[in-house]
Amino acid sequence: VKLYDFGVAPNPRRVRIFLAEKGVEVPIVTVNIAKAENREPAFLAVNPLGTLPVLELDDGRRLTESVAICRYIEAQHPEPPLMGVDPEDCAWVEMWSRRMEIELLFPIAQTFRNTHAFWAGRVRQVPEWGEVCREKSEQRLAWLDAELADRAWVAGERFTIADITALVSIDFGRVADIRIAPAQKNLQRWYEAVSSRPSAQA
Amino acid sequence: VKLYDFGVAPNPRRVRIFLAEKGVEVPIVTVNIAKAENREPAFLAVNPLGTLPVLELDDGRRLTESVAICRYIEAQHPEPPLMGVDPEDCAWVEMWSRRMEIELLFPIAQTFRNTHAFWAGRVRQVPEWGEVCREKSEQRLAWLDAELADRAWVAGERFTIADITALVSIDFGRVADIRIAPAQKNLQRWYEAVSSRPSAQA
Repeated sequence: VKLYDFGVAPNPRRVRIFLAEKGVEVPIVTVNIAKAENREPAFLAVNPLGTLPVLELDDGRRLTESVAICRYIEAQHPEPPLMGVDPEDCAWVEMWSRRMEIELLFPIAQTFRNTHAFWAGRVRQVPEWGEVCREKSEQRLAWLDAELADRAWVAGERFTIADITALVSIDFGRVADIRIAPAQKNLQRWYEAVSSRPSAQA
Repeated sequence: VKLYDFGVAPNPRRVRIFLAEKGVEVPIVTVNIAKAENREPAFLAVNPLGTLPVLELDDGRRLTESVAICRYIEAQHPEPPLMGVDPEDCAWVEMWSRRMEIELLFPIAQTFRNTHAFWAGRVRQVPEWGEVCREKSEQRLAWLDAELADRAWVAGERFTIADITALVSIDFGRVADIRIAPAQKNLQRWYEAVSSRPSAQA
């Protein structure tokens, strides 16, 4: 098994943190997105969509989509559970995991894509859409701060994949200058707890 | 248990089709998005994010996010399995389910949001971003057509939630004039098979 990976991109980092929480090591193949290696024929043969990460199994099958890769790892290494402790709990964790993706990660990533110089000349940027997404991202940080008033972790009593996605999203926000506001004390407390875990170094 | 729902929106329809495939009926509470009822205080008390669908359990807890709702239903009503037949298979189905969402449903929805008169005055539209999303949607339909050359269903040998998401996305594409091209014969064959199931009427 091996993981096609790139250090600073948020989706590969989700999987690395998930693996670190499980205590599992997987050989890494680096594909440099900054050099557009993910758009070269060698990698498009691995994943025609050009996205990272990809988990390649020993039988040659390739699994893409970071959350699907995490679910595969969860099946192989159930402890500690990061996606729910029973089938019904899995649904609640998934709700929070998806909210962190859809309400935070995606608008932050679209802000970056549409406003940052990195993407100029690489994709068709639409700065006005980036600003719509920036506003949404900032609203959602305020919403998440309020949600965290009465609990330690995003999905409830336990650290889960929802915390991983939220951490990765907020750290990635720096590239688009989207940050936790000083007044967002719940979010800051949560951020300190999550980012001080050893897995956050992954 | 009851489901907050709105007829023509794609995410509620995903859940209705899922329920129909399971043979499960749930009382419906209609929230009219076209009249912005989902932005009124009564519904924001149910779901502060204002999104549909919401599954309200008998104990009052409320589950949002269509795929999380489907996972809850799958836990309660395992047969027929629509999200994988074992824990490892669940990961493969999730890969395809996410691809249908991220590569089809989201760009189609953003095309609609940014280009259609329905949203004028309701949200800040960015038509140029709508065109970026339209182009992506059309590329992804061509990609999916190629993927379906050698199999009956999106995720492999069985009908799954990935087919539901793809069907809902493609049907919703009509509102943005995004359609299967006449030359996309695999996709047309698949579409006829999926849309002729009784659940497609949901």
